[in-house]
Amino acid sequence: MSQAPATSLQDIVGHAKEYGFVFPSSEIYDGLQAVYDYGQNGVELKNNLKAAWWKAMTQLNDNIVGIDAAIFMHPLTWKASGHVDGFNDPMIDNKDSKKRYRADQLLEGKAEQYEKDGEPEKAKALLAEMGRLLSAEDLNGVRELIIAEGIKCQVSGTSNWTEVRQFNLMFSTQVGSVAEDTSMIYLRPETAQGIFVNFLNVQKSGRMKVPFGIAQIGKAFRNEIVARQFIFRMREFEQMEMQFFVRPGTEEEWYNKWKEARLKFHKAIGLPAEKLKYHDHEKLAHYAKAAVDIEFEFPFGFREIEGIHSRSDFDLRNHQELSKKKQQYFDADLDENGKPYGNYIPYVVETSVGADRLFLATFCNAYTVESVGEGDAAKERTFLKLHPALAPFKAAVLPLVKKDGLAEKAQALASSLKSSFRTVYDDNAAIGKRYTRQDLIGTPFCIVVDYQTMEDDTVTIRHRDSMEQERVHINELKEKIGYQVAIERILEVI
Amino acid sequence: MSQAPATSLQDIVGHAKEYGFVFPSSEIYDGLQAVYDYGQNGVELKNNLKAAWWKAMTQLNDNIVGIDAAIFMHPLTWKASGHVDGFNDPMIDNKDSKKRYRADQLLEGKAEQYEKDGEPEKAKALLAEMGRLLSAEDLNGVRELIIAEGIKCQVSGTSNWTEVRQFNLMFSTQVGSVAEDTSMIYLRPETAQGIFVNFLNVQKSGRMKVPFGIAQIGKAFRNEIVARQFIFRMREFEQMEMQFFVRPGTEEEWYNKWKEARLKFHKAIGLPAEKLKYHDHEKLAHYAKAAVDIEFEFPFGFREIEGIHSRSDFDLRNHQELSKKKQQYFDADLDENGKPYGNYIPYVVETSVGADRLFLATFCNAYTVESVGEGDAAKERTFLKLHPALAPFKAAVLPLVKKDGLAEKAQALASSLKSSFRTVYDDNAAIGKRYTRQDLIGTPFCIVVDYQTMEDDTVTIRHRDSMEQERVHINELKEKIGYQVAIERILEVI
Repeated sequence: MSQAPATSLQDIVGHAKEYGFVFPSSEIYDGLQAVYDYGQNGVELKNNLKAAWWKAMTQLNDNIVGIDAAIFMHPLTWKASGHVDGFNDPMIDNKDSKKRYRADQLLEGKAEQYEKDGEPEKAKALLAEMGRLLSAEDLNGVRELIIAEGIKCQVSGTSNWTEVRQFNLMFSTQVGSVAEDTSMIYLRPETAQGIFVNFLNVQKSGRMKVPFGIAQIGKAFRNEIVARQFIFRMREFEQMEMQFFVRPGTEEEWYNKWKEARLKFHKAIGLPAEKLKYHDHEKLAHYAKAAVDIEFEFPFGFREIEGIHSRSDFDLRNHQELSKKKQQYFDADLDENGKPYGNYIPYVVETSVGADRLFLATFCNAYTVESVGEGDAAKERTFLKLHPALAPFKAAVLPLVKKDGLAEKAQALASSLKSSFRTVYDDNAAIGKRYTRQDLIGTPFCIVVDYQTMEDDTVTIRHRDSMEQERVHINELKEKIGYQVAIERILEVI
Repeated sequence: MSQAPATSLQDIVGHAKEYGFVFPSSEIYDGLQAVYDYGQNGVELKNNLKAAWWKAMTQLNDNIVGIDAAIFMHPLTWKASGHVDGFNDPMIDNKDSKKRYRADQLLEGKAEQYEKDGEPEKAKALLAEMGRLLSAEDLNGVRELIIAEGIKCQVSGTSNWTEVRQFNLMFSTQVGSVAEDTSMIYLRPETAQGIFVNFLNVQKSGRMKVPFGIAQIGKAFRNEIVARQFIFRMREFEQMEMQFFVRPGTEEEWYNKWKEARLKFHKAIGLPAEKLKYHDHEKLAHYAKAAVDIEFEFPFGFREIEGIHSRSDFDLRNHQELSKKKQQYFDADLDENGKPYGNYIPYVVETSVGADRLFLATFCNAYTVESVGEGDAAKERTFLKLHPALAPFKAAVLPLVKKDGLAEKAQALASSLKSSFRTVYDDNAAIGKRYTRQDLIGTPFCIVVDYQTMEDDTVTIRHRDSMEQERVHINELKEKIGYQVAIERILEVI
């Protein structure tokens, strides 16, 4: 057996669609850009990933609880968070073609060109200058840089550029039907604020003591100017975020703990160490104390799947100022002088995973093409090497042939297993073809009912990754397979 | 023990907030009308309800699979479904006060007045006339009826009414940043269409054979003019829908099967038979063959929690016409003449539960206030009688006292149970107070570590509903409790 050539994103997109993992949204109407639907196998894989994260947070940790805040929030939330004023991309239009570009991406494209042309110093200098102008919000300077670099529109071929303007990435809608009551609200661009505005509700009703965390899984929306790379950057996406509230002064310790714990999680669900790395942020937001990304090696390179951020008391303090409601915690623990720490606004360490990105990482990692057999019998085998707890189906029950009562026996067995874990029955086509079907969707165990089964109630279990077979009694199946497919197997190694 | 007086919605709202089940959205900014957040206990109860429904659909049934379609869909979807043209409420403004009303609710209010005044015939006649005008889309007739009935604005006291206009309940937003590409899209007002547009993708990639079903859980949004009754009618809500595709001519049989199966589900999660009833629709949409609601008795009366609808091929046929993509299935089964049934557009039987309504029904039903004790010792006990598989925490581990190593012993026990099910440790306050805490959030089992535990490793389990205690060995806990709290206990009785 040898590994086939590297997987391309094309392979992944194709496999995801063909085997019911991810479909383009509204495909019969030729799709909706940067929006995707999860198919019958994709939804199971995604739900299993979400369950693993949720349990790792709220079941394993005494001091972490979940919430599920609405997508609609009061518009002042986004004023406090800084999204109304600062959640922008710089855009520029070409006056001749009327085509619109992200100004930073035009400059990045030019820098890439310098790299290709063997002038990395020029590339570096250009990116540095762009960074300087953008942080200074010098949009006119950005425009002048685009012109000075001689960047032209791909369509019109001219440098006839408009001014650079900021474009807010939040989607808005009108709520309320009564004319005088109608107000604009936003679709949340992140889930974190749903946690911050509920900080006191949860702390008080749950009698939580700092340090404690609030976890949430939910949809967020961003009107990305350029969305790309399949489900990596979508306009509608799902986040798994946990805000950990700590006593000021202890944030570094907790940041380091969570940085380590989160990497462990990704390894526990099956992502290999060599495809994961930390990427420390060099430039920090003004309120941030530290920030790191956990990156996964996708077919298109190392990219962020999770961010861990030490956010100070930025969000709670802003909400306190805008809402005029104290966002404080009274800490009765004693400091070194024997006095209670007293009232403070907690600091926050945030862990934030993109659920769709984690899905894509897991899917890319599981997608395996290998050569099997020798000489004339050599062929390629494609299968999804998913952790059994993540697989859409846990087992397939296959009668060797349909006759002589084998089908009925297999159906009865499938029915009895179904109450314990997701099991599919298949009697259509030759056994090899049926193995392949299960390989392609990542089913870890194929249970074959054969003539011997009719005599002694034993079956073979064919293992997906090794293709090895073992013979076991049907009475052992529920426990043997049930054990291996439980989300708890993931929790154990975190 | 005797049952206390009937529960009011007020009691429910108060308990839900105080014990971390449901918070008003963005409460620190004085809330957002008709939007709510699920707190740390609410999210667990809701997730457990969703898991029970999901497993009942996609794990117990060979021929039902799930999907997770995006909230954003191509706008033509809502043209095909009829929502662009027909998903409206009739509104009327008073010219003097500028206040806006739902025209039908003004007339219903008048009818209620007739009822109160002892003139039920007038009430009946008014409602009948209103129904006639609305189905005929005679908006001018509705206005004239309002004037003829002498209905006045509550604010201005005048009958100076504008015309009646239709108000579409869909939320819209602009997607795309490039000026010429910007288009209006809607937040889906129902999840069903995400299933219909993926019908062929799922059927083909999953090799599904009619009859088969596609299940989905997800958010939907409606700009309700008058939202009310807590989480019963919200602007953002969650649906659990299953579309079952059948051969035309078999829809009645399947409609009846699902009608029965769905009632069984609600009983299985613990809703009592006497609080559930069917409500057959007398008036059907033109495409519908039959429709029934399953109603639950809330504190505010019997109301719909689920609808089962025989929808013909209305949706798939409209999508086929608008998309020009055939929405057909080839049925190779043989008819009575021995010929394959061949190509057809399947008929659909839909089951549609409001997840928030199911949550509210479960919560209202679980909320119990009873008198315990006699004479001077008599007091009220409030607890949530939730099915153990639905409870936010499955067990609480409580040391009788904190000293003599009992706390450490209890903590170790809690840790060992946590990998199997959600367990809380609590050593703060007298044991009775700690029982009460768990009663209020519905924890079914309190495990008490006492002095005897230190000698023989036995503990008492205190049962929430009966308050009875039993003594068991700690080695039995994982299996004994694990068995009772598994979602599978619900699946077994469906």
